[in-house]
Amino acid sequence: MLVGYLGPKGSFTHDVATHSFPTSERIAYRTITDVIKAYENQEIDFAVVPVENSIEGSVHETLDYLFHQGTIQAVAEVVYPIKQQLLVAKKDRLIRTVYSHPQALAQGKAFLRAHYPNVAMEMTASTAYAARYVAEHPDLEIAAIAPLAAASEYGLEVQAKDIQEIEDNYTRFWILGAKEPAISETLSPALQKVSLALTLPSNLAGALYKGLSTFAWRGINLTKIESRPLKTALGEYFFIIDLLNEAPDLLQFAYQELDSLGIQTKVLGQYQVYTLKENGMEKR
Amino acid sequence: MLVGYLGPKGSFTHDVATHSFPTSERIAYRTITDVIKAYENQEIDFAVVPVENSIEGSVHETLDYLFHQGTIQAVAEVVYPIKQQLLVAKKDRLIRTVYSHPQALAQGKAFLRAHYPNVAMEMTASTAYAARYVAEHPDLEIAAIAPLAAASEYGLEVQAKDIQEIEDNYTRFWILGAKEPAISETLSPALQKVSLALTLPSNLAGALYKGLSTFAWRGINLTKIESRPLKTALGEYFFIIDLLNEAPDLLQFAYQELDSLGIQTKVLGQYQVYTLKENGMEKR
Repeated sequence: MLVGYLGPKGSFTHDVATHSFPTSERIAYRTITDVIKAYENQEIDFAVVPVENSIEGSVHETLDYLFHQGTIQAVAEVVYPIKQQLLVAKKDRLIRTVYSHPQALAQGKAFLRAHYPNVAMEMTASTAYAARYVAEHPDLEIAAIAPLAAASEYGLEVQAKDIQEIEDNYTRFWILGAKEPAISETLSPALQKVSLALTLPSNLAGALYKGLSTFAWRGINLTKIESRPLKTALGEYFFIIDLLNEAPDLLQFAYQELDSLGIQTKVLGQYQVYTLKENGMEKR
Repeated sequence: MLVGYLGPKGSFTHDVATHSFPTSERIAYRTITDVIKAYENQEIDFAVVPVENSIEGSVHETLDYLFHQGTIQAVAEVVYPIKQQLLVAKKDRLIRTVYSHPQALAQGKAFLRAHYPNVAMEMTASTAYAARYVAEHPDLEIAAIAPLAAASEYGLEVQAKDIQEIEDNYTRFWILGAKEPAISETLSPALQKVSLALTLPSNLAGALYKGLSTFAWRGINLTKIESRPLKTALGEYFFIIDLLNEAPDLLQFAYQELDSLGIQTKVLGQYQVYTLKENGMEKR
């Protein structure tokens, strides 16, 4: 079985793919779109991509692709803690520039201001690319903010551990595929969820209110609602709604009612949520 | 009067600041947070920052700062068309690498695939930084995707014009300040709007539904609703709601009702929307 993930090696998504499918062959792709396209071209059996971070919010590349172009759905979700490390080629060297993904730079900004007030920050396409760049230029006075897995992957040393600003930092990863995967028992099953994309007829206030009514009066609990631009005109949106899949029968009636209200529904995923056993996140 | 904007010179925000305040002194700042902080430190009278793009969605740095840390409000909005140019130091040279902000790279991807299928794409912190980099390295085989204003600012040539993928691409810019500014008559006043941030008590489905009810049954039209992570735990959000300010009295009653429902309301802005006269956007 082949599993594709957002690479390169040493990324958080790589870590999640390894945890979820420890015995499968795992293939890194350069972008989220490339991973999903690889699945669509039947090069891989499952695709692992990030979908939402507790601080930075949704990963638009994933959700927009699934809404606009994809027929593929999420069949499992892994909620994974994000811990950032300051990595260097050689410990205790002078650091003039820190490389990382913009979100990781934002998360490490408070630490850098306190301990390295004069460093410059440079954006890279991912945390793992930053780590690879530092490994490839061992003589430069640079560091990377990246996951621990990147240190062993690229032979870097940890200059400072867990430098992220907010402790409670998690990312939701989706496993996309045709059927529910057999997930490693090192991960614990938690909730069952459904993710929908709703496209409303005109008149946002009334239509969204009616759409939410179909869930509210059935007692179906939402865990997320978010608008995304339809990419047609400013002010036109679709809505991503996550809900707890506790009453599948009631949900079918809600779908029918949404349809009769003129609200289009696309199922982005219907999935078991998994968490790491070790950190007591079973309730998520 | 001093006006701060998200720089560097040649950025879209610079263009908007120039259009809005043609006779004022204008000062570039490096990040959105820096512009807002400059206003808070009374270095400038108004701050011009981007808030939402019709394709990429909200500018989180602006909205998160105003919600979490700011006491400053939007006092005017400018809706501005985004047109991207492929800029080079010397026309018709070989191009191996294209530099730009990730959103501009995304918008130019279809054009590049069709006309320059083998170029590499490199991210920069802004489109204007990309233009400046190309100008500073005239001997490299590189190009930038940037606004037209950046070409004259940095002495670059336009290799290809209006390469953005989707024609209907606009960005909303907010002018932050203490009072309504006198906006240049080259911009046309359009709608009056209010932007709110709502923080709900627990039970998302019921609370959001009730919150929207306070607007729906008064016929107050929403033009946007979006959830943003509260940065506490995964699954906790605040909501940004834009509405048409057509019945200020009714809105006051809605505020009171939200308060009695336990929903906290923070006003992010109350403003006149302006559009460019030339492109017939008066209805936005």
